[in-house]
Amino acid sequence: MIQKLIANIKKTNAPIVVGLDPMLSYIPSQILKKAYEEKGENLSGAAEAVWQFNKQIVDATYDLIPAVKPQIAMYEQFGIEGLMAYKKTVDYCHEKGLVVIGDVKRGDIGSTSAAYATAHLGAVEIGGKKFAGFDEDFATVNPYLGSDGINPFVDVCKECDKGIFVLVKTSNPSSGEFQDQVMTSTGKPLYEYVGQMVEKWGESTMEGDYTNVGAVVGATYPEMGKALREIMPHTYILVPGYGAQGGTGKDLVPFFNKDGLGAIVNSSRGIIAAYKKDEYARFGEAAFADASRAAVEDMIKDITQYL
Amino acid sequence: MIQKLIANIKKTNAPIVVGLDPMLSYIPSQILKKAYEEKGENLSGAAEAVWQFNKQIVDATYDLIPAVKPQIAMYEQFGIEGLMAYKKTVDYCHEKGLVVIGDVKRGDIGSTSAAYATAHLGAVEIGGKKFAGFDEDFATVNPYLGSDGINPFVDVCKECDKGIFVLVKTSNPSSGEFQDQVMTSTGKPLYEYVGQMVEKWGESTMEGDYTNVGAVVGATYPEMGKALREIMPHTYILVPGYGAQGGTGKDLVPFFNKDGLGAIVNSSRGIIAAYKKDEYARFGEAAFADASRAAVEDMIKDITQYL
Repeated sequence: MIQKLIANIKKTNAPIVVGLDPMLSYIPSQILKKAYEEKGENLSGAAEAVWQFNKQIVDATYDLIPAVKPQIAMYEQFGIEGLMAYKKTVDYCHEKGLVVIGDVKRGDIGSTSAAYATAHLGAVEIGGKKFAGFDEDFATVNPYLGSDGINPFVDVCKECDKGIFVLVKTSNPSSGEFQDQVMTSTGKPLYEYVGQMVEKWGESTMEGDYTNVGAVVGATYPEMGKALREIMPHTYILVPGYGAQGGTGKDLVPFFNKDGLGAIVNSSRGIIAAYKKDEYARFGEAAFADASRAAVEDMIKDITQYL
Repeated sequence: MIQKLIANIKKTNAPIVVGLDPMLSYIPSQILKKAYEEKGENLSGAAEAVWQFNKQIVDATYDLIPAVKPQIAMYEQFGIEGLMAYKKTVDYCHEKGLVVIGDVKRGDIGSTSAAYATAHLGAVEIGGKKFAGFDEDFATVNPYLGSDGINPFVDVCKECDKGIFVLVKTSNPSSGEFQDQVMTSTGKPLYEYVGQMVEKWGESTMEGDYTNVGAVVGATYPEMGKALREIMPHTYILVPGYGAQGGTGKDLVPFFNKDGLGAIVNSSRGIIAAYKKDEYARFGEAAFADASRAAVEDMIKDITQYL
């Protein structure tokens, strides 16, 4: 699957991913109004609004971008109805040729991790036939439980040609509390060890120069990104924290390899709620999707100018 | 919410929780057959079988136990249909007076963690009204992202009288890869520091002698459980790994406080698939729920004899 992602990145010349993390406060009033009229002012109506909002953003940007990253929490908060909107979004993005990174941050052990992997990347067998649950292309995974948590995902990736991105160094201010702790065994911080393990977990999943086991490293920590880039030469890095969280185009250079590949940068709010920023206010609420397209174009320029 | 859990534990004199982690291979053929006939041999039929299986186990055990812990991965693998069975299970257990611990191991940052907390413990506001998504009583949470990931859950716990259990030292063989790393800053392993933070995150949520921020510590590591019991005096410990994973009743003593409280021990496969064990084979497949009841009674005896 990593080669499909790379092919999409090369085709668009855009090492970026649009985070489809809709909050109700981002959704223009005309979409909310219509959805509530049709489905009621309830979970069903809210989920419909989320789906219509996503659809317009995807329609306005899909030809410019290689991938999307829906954040499942934003759908899960609307219960079953929200998860139906998530699934519709995944399927619609596939129809548009986009790689879908399910930002699900799942992680457990053994048969439970296998069940999560099946839910998001694989298919469950019922009466001899296979049925896919959510069917994203990549999923984000939490490493806290160690290899027992990751290996079942790797097995499903190999079986179904899918991939994962494992959290290594996250973009948030308190990510250092545990991730930056220096270990007596190596004299290095924990996140570097997690990075080494990611490179190792990926070994059996090589496709060309990269593995199907990627890493998440926040744009807000470029020095650490540089160290991790060296520790994980065959690992694709998914980089959150650009834009709203403070990372800029110049900060992103260390995350890439010399081939201009090796990293894909996410922006969520900065793209999907672009119309709320002064910079794109000229589009107005009704043309919110055009504002998103302009924000995507600007983001691509900002990042590729340094590569 | 921790006091509701404690009240249920005192009422039943059973510091245990039944893990509702159904795999298709656990479900008796008569239930599968009926569900497939009614709903089709597909995700819908499988989800119906899961729900019918759960219902019979809950009906056979609810008067003996304080709480259940459905493992959402086992439902999520059946997609939307599976999550509908999860929600039905949560609601049914509430009708039966049980405390429901959603074993969801979610964890993200800021507004995303808030969305997960809303999904599982809170309610989302739509047009001035509140709607609950999954509405468990407790959720399990992964700490890898630090305080930014946990605090939004704590806020929802306070607002809605709910609780969480944070992963500290998990029961699996490879849990030590990252969790046991000794930190140069303290000379202690990471899991002890996570335990200290759990006690701290809980401070503002005290109810009686315990907080609404619990910890997950595996039965398979009783020495570490002992150390964590001292580090976290006001923290309830959810203990997985009893039975199938190797922990025994005697191993569990260190997880409890002197008051006989402070810990709740989970068993999943050992209860819900008891009829498949030699020990309970006399019940046969048709009376699988009676086998589960016998296994619950034996588990309570095994644990309380040492307290």
